[in-house]
Amino acid sequence: MKALHFKANRIHAEFFDAVRQIPSLELDVVDEWESLSDEQLAGLIRQYDVLLLSRQPRVPDAIADDPGRLKYISYLHGGVSKAVGLPIIRSSIQVTNWGDRVAGEQALNSITLLLATVRDLHARIAGVRRGEKPGFRSVGEHVAELNIGVYGFGAVAREFVRLLEPFGATIRVYDPYAADIPVHCTRVDSLKALFETSRAIVIHAGLTPETKGSVTRELLALLPDHGIVINTARGAIVDQEALFDELRNGRLRAGLDVLWPDNLPGDHEARQWENLIWTCHRIKGSAWPDEGLAGILRPYRNSLENLEAFVKGQPLKWIIDEKRYESMT
Amino acid sequence: MKALHFKANRIHAEFFDAVRQIPSLELDVVDEWESLSDEQLAGLIRQYDVLLLSRQPRVPDAIADDPGRLKYISYLHGGVSKAVGLPIIRSSIQVTNWGDRVAGEQALNSITLLLATVRDLHARIAGVRRGEKPGFRSVGEHVAELNIGVYGFGAVAREFVRLLEPFGATIRVYDPYAADIPVHCTRVDSLKALFETSRAIVIHAGLTPETKGSVTRELLALLPDHGIVINTARGAIVDQEALFDELRNGRLRAGLDVLWPDNLPGDHEARQWENLIWTCHRIKGSAWPDEGLAGILRPYRNSLENLEAFVKGQPLKWIIDEKRYESMT
Repeated sequence: MKALHFKANRIHAEFFDAVRQIPSLELDVVDEWESLSDEQLAGLIRQYDVLLLSRQPRVPDAIADDPGRLKYISYLHGGVSKAVGLPIIRSSIQVTNWGDRVAGEQALNSITLLLATVRDLHARIAGVRRGEKPGFRSVGEHVAELNIGVYGFGAVAREFVRLLEPFGATIRVYDPYAADIPVHCTRVDSLKALFETSRAIVIHAGLTPETKGSVTRELLALLPDHGIVINTARGAIVDQEALFDELRNGRLRAGLDVLWPDNLPGDHEARQWENLIWTCHRIKGSAWPDEGLAGILRPYRNSLENLEAFVKGQPLKWIIDEKRYESMT
Repeated sequence: MKALHFKANRIHAEFFDAVRQIPSLELDVVDEWESLSDEQLAGLIRQYDVLLLSRQPRVPDAIADDPGRLKYISYLHGGVSKAVGLPIIRSSIQVTNWGDRVAGEQALNSITLLLATVRDLHARIAGVRRGEKPGFRSVGEHVAELNIGVYGFGAVAREFVRLLEPFGATIRVYDPYAADIPVHCTRVDSLKALFETSRAIVIHAGLTPETKGSVTRELLALLPDHGIVINTARGAIVDQEALFDELRNGRLRAGLDVLWPDNLPGDHEARQWENLIWTCHRIKGSAWPDEGLAGILRPYRNSLENLEAFVKGQPLKWIIDEKRYESMT
């Protein structure tokens, strides 16, 4: 079988070394593809069984109707929509992404921001930098009294509540599409009920027309004073102007990896708000240097396992069907 | 029975209201005691069955040999040695402290500092405040690869590893005096073995002649690059000059609630080190305002339960014996 990759700087060379170790799979890497037309790209892709795709180039939709040899696109990141169109998802070509590769890390980032926000680490760090000895008590003694409301209950949220379980918090979940909820969590049937009963809201919803702007000013007003909003999902889920009003006046606290739009001007006032920890959609970790090759390859494990399965004719994991595609961001 | 309290501003009035609810216990609060001599203090104390003691005044040692009515000193904080001398501990008078009141909170603070340090929150927050968009990846993808070494295995450490369990880290413990270790932890038999096998060291030892300065320059050098030191116990356990050298040159990272001495001048360089989160021995939480009386009384639960037990002639918890006294700080 033949695999194709259009060279991208984001992917570690060690991944391709590992791909080349897979028996009966031959890999071609195309260095110069920026100047290729859509027709030329399609012509090239049709000669391969597998496409290992980074964020670029976008796969021509024409491949959907005339795939040639192509049976499988392994997208090496998460949200596939920038590189693969719906016609291809609807075609016979299988498309997978990195699967649960980041769920564990995102859940870790979410719990990190939650704990750091409860303990007001921004205010403490800023005070220390100014030469003070911040002596205040943060509101929130134990996580057990936190009453956490989790909005959206996909893979990241499941991992988040698994990590949180021994902390003893009362965890409520709102997600009308979640089939099952762990026994240590309680399901509520509206966002209003979630906000009414929570001191901290943790957002793990996907961005869809239904969730966009769904964390409204009215909902935020239901949180108690010193209440907390954690968002490592998508900024556009929140009415950001309303949240910023609540942060500016000091009533709420927030730990946000994401904003909408997903940046702030260098002189934006929110950067100085000590009740906000903003991690710039970059709260990521990497392997430890002393882990060597195992550390570098860990993030590619799902992709490598899928490639091996494909070569052996076994079923693939993390296939993007139309429903998953449309809830992706 | 009669209880005495020398007024201190640290104790909530609601606690004394609750004490007054205990049947057959009469409480006297002495407002003006600063001018009393040791003899006058002793004379007063001898008229009571119970002393509810805040940090001051120090109980005269003469009480040990001639306790009068006094049978019980309920110390309302943790480390009792500033207010009660060893002769009293050795006497027939029972002395208790707040018991496990803070173990849960200290464990929470420890895990908060650990996660915040793994994700370099100081550097991220400082960068955001300067107008940057910090785009780096922190070293440490999942806590599962963290290889955590816990130094000292008392109540706080037990709670810490209980919270950490679902994160999947390899946890090693060094404490020659710990009787049992949870199944998800591995015991090592020297500090050297702990430092050799850990990427993060979390200190939960008491300060004793044995632990003082025990985290040496040589041990710190065994940690890998980007290695982490978390200390919410006592600053003097660490060779601080050695740790500061490792932080100044950027090789290690640290989250420290405690230093030795336990403060830094306002212009000390360490305040600006972005690989250090220092929380000034004040990383504390308080109840949520909307918890009302239940929140205010929660920290006094152990003291109130002991008082009720004492009045009923039942055994007390958290009694400070000579061994515990000497390992206290």
